[in-house]
Amino acid sequence: MQTLNVDLGERSYPIHIGPGLLEQPERLRAAIPGNSAVVVTNETVAPLYRDRLDAALEGLQVATVTLGDGERFKTMETVGRILDVLVEGRFDRRTTVIALGGGVVGDIAGFAAAIYQRGVHFIQVPTTLLAQVDSSVGGKTGVNHPGGKNLIGAFHQPRCVIADTDTLDTLDDRQLSAGLAEVIKYGLILDLGFLDWLEANMAGLRGRDAALLTEAIERSCRIKADVVARDERETGMRALLNLGHTFGHAIETATGYGTWLHGEAIGAGMCMAADLSHRQGWIHHADFERVERVMRAAGLPTEAPETLTAERFFELMQIDKKVVDGRLRLVLLERLGHAVVTRDFDPALLDQTLQAYCGPR
Amino acid sequence: MQTLNVDLGERSYPIHIGPGLLEQPERLRAAIPGNSAVVVTNETVAPLYRDRLDAALEGLQVATVTLGDGERFKTMETVGRILDVLVEGRFDRRTTVIALGGGVVGDIAGFAAAIYQRGVHFIQVPTTLLAQVDSSVGGKTGVNHPGGKNLIGAFHQPRCVIADTDTLDTLDDRQLSAGLAEVIKYGLILDLGFLDWLEANMAGLRGRDAALLTEAIERSCRIKADVVARDERETGMRALLNLGHTFGHAIETATGYGTWLHGEAIGAGMCMAADLSHRQGWIHHADFERVERVMRAAGLPTEAPETLTAERFFELMQIDKKVVDGRLRLVLLERLGHAVVTRDFDPALLDQTLQAYCGPR
Repeated sequence: MQTLNVDLGERSYPIHIGPGLLEQPERLRAAIPGNSAVVVTNETVAPLYRDRLDAALEGLQVATVTLGDGERFKTMETVGRILDVLVEGRFDRRTTVIALGGGVVGDIAGFAAAIYQRGVHFIQVPTTLLAQVDSSVGGKTGVNHPGGKNLIGAFHQPRCVIADTDTLDTLDDRQLSAGLAEVIKYGLILDLGFLDWLEANMAGLRGRDAALLTEAIERSCRIKADVVARDERETGMRALLNLGHTFGHAIETATGYGTWLHGEAIGAGMCMAADLSHRQGWIHHADFERVERVMRAAGLPTEAPETLTAERFFELMQIDKKVVDGRLRLVLLERLGHAVVTRDFDPALLDQTLQAYCGPR
Repeated sequence: MQTLNVDLGERSYPIHIGPGLLEQPERLRAAIPGNSAVVVTNETVAPLYRDRLDAALEGLQVATVTLGDGERFKTMETVGRILDVLVEGRFDRRTTVIALGGGVVGDIAGFAAAIYQRGVHFIQVPTTLLAQVDSSVGGKTGVNHPGGKNLIGAFHQPRCVIADTDTLDTLDDRQLSAGLAEVIKYGLILDLGFLDWLEANMAGLRGRDAALLTEAIERSCRIKADVVARDERETGMRALLNLGHTFGHAIETATGYGTWLHGEAIGAGMCMAADLSHRQGWIHHADFERVERVMRAAGLPTEAPETLTAERFFELMQIDKKVVDGRLRLVLLERLGHAVVTRDFDPALLDQTLQAYCGPR
């Protein structure tokens, strides 16, 4: 097992990564300070792993909230359901909310934990690759609004993250690819050596080689933990983690949350960001092709949905949280392995990118 | 004008107190960093003061959300209305939410500011005595749940507080008395000299002597700011500020939010806390009588509602946020001017207090 520490002063917390962690009830139990816990999970994950949690929670006051599976449940209404369970069960402010599932479960449960009694304890037990490398690190929680993704939320750091790599064995191929999108992202924005390693090992990763997956998760979490430690509230470099996200969120909003998986939308979004970076003259055409190639190797889409026009796409980008004082900021590639957050791109070139990726083609 | 600084490191902020502050548009404008603002107010306050804000906001992108007046609007649904306006107007993360009104408006608006895009700027313009001395200082925001008061919320500090004492001229007597309840509280928990001063000047305060009100607000804010600076997240001494609140919240929940004003419920609650403190042998009977007398002098109730039984009262106290690991904590008076947070009270004596205050009498 590997343990990383996310260094956030008094909000620091450990991320444990490795096989068989859910078979060790004492690990979870040690992270629960009070005498009660509320497990938030979904209908897909609950039958697979809930019994393992139950062993760890024996003797505590426990309630479980089982959500539907998918991004479409990531709403204030779902948060309200969890809050109702917390209030009705009279869970006090020392209770711990445990998220057992993927990124959607973690975002919803974390937000409920953030706003119940102005904040109760929170533990992440991520069961998808995407959640293990991305959403369980860094404290962003929240839900979607009909007008845009993740528009409602809070920063709320977990007490610990337990990433059991065995849970990836039950993940379907599409979900695994979606997780790899975020893994590739870390290479593209900050670590060219990691990108090289991913290209060399993509077949093994998709074949679920346990050692390779463990290494990919650990390197990803290390990069993200380092970024978050330097910029918890995203006033600066943390925004680099949004490579492909402004494009990707537009795709998700346009197609309805959940039609495209988040990682799939981000994969296509990173291709679009690379395309614009190339049009700006920042990266070579060969670099852009390399980005497309690694996405394809990971099983990810490299094009926007055909139904989306450039005009509509641009409109959807405006509601993104990266808009500041009415000006769109984008994460682009100055070179492979080195992203920048910038408002200094040519709007005409952005339009060219949107025209190239959007229908009718 | 007096300016106090609430010392919270990078979240520090000033509280400006005095007459005529709303006539100085540059004061508000200087505290707004972006180029947009959303004013949250209510139907009672809007006609009185909104035009003064409009002058200060000229040239910015502005939207106004006018709520119904009263505690019954302090719900997630109301927060949802504000979030809808923020999303639909495409207000970005540099926008500022301005609360113009009493404590209810401030709590709701502050919570919306806390969770929109994981936190945007927030300014408080409190227009009631209670909001000026209590809810606008310290960063607590939130809404009620059908199962209990303030159960959903967040800590979110304002950028500044502008307390214009002229706004108290339009306050009705009952609201003024409710505000005095929190003012008296500061004397009871931490400053016997302030309690003496309040007793000596109660007639003038209720007669709205401007100089006396300004002094009362300033001394109250100074005590609260000092407590909050030492314990922002209420892990320790900040809980002292809840004197009378566990009793008072039970009254508010039982009678339906808004039937009793918050300050009225807290006034009766402080009498009950004093009663229990006396039964514990911590304060003399004369001290208890002095507490009742100052509440009466301020125009506050000193008894619980007749419809509430001791059993139901006790039940309602259990859902309070001060319950930790199933054990009720109360703020009691070790002596006048010195409160303590304790679990070490005799449950039989608490029952005696509840029997004494609850019906049938």
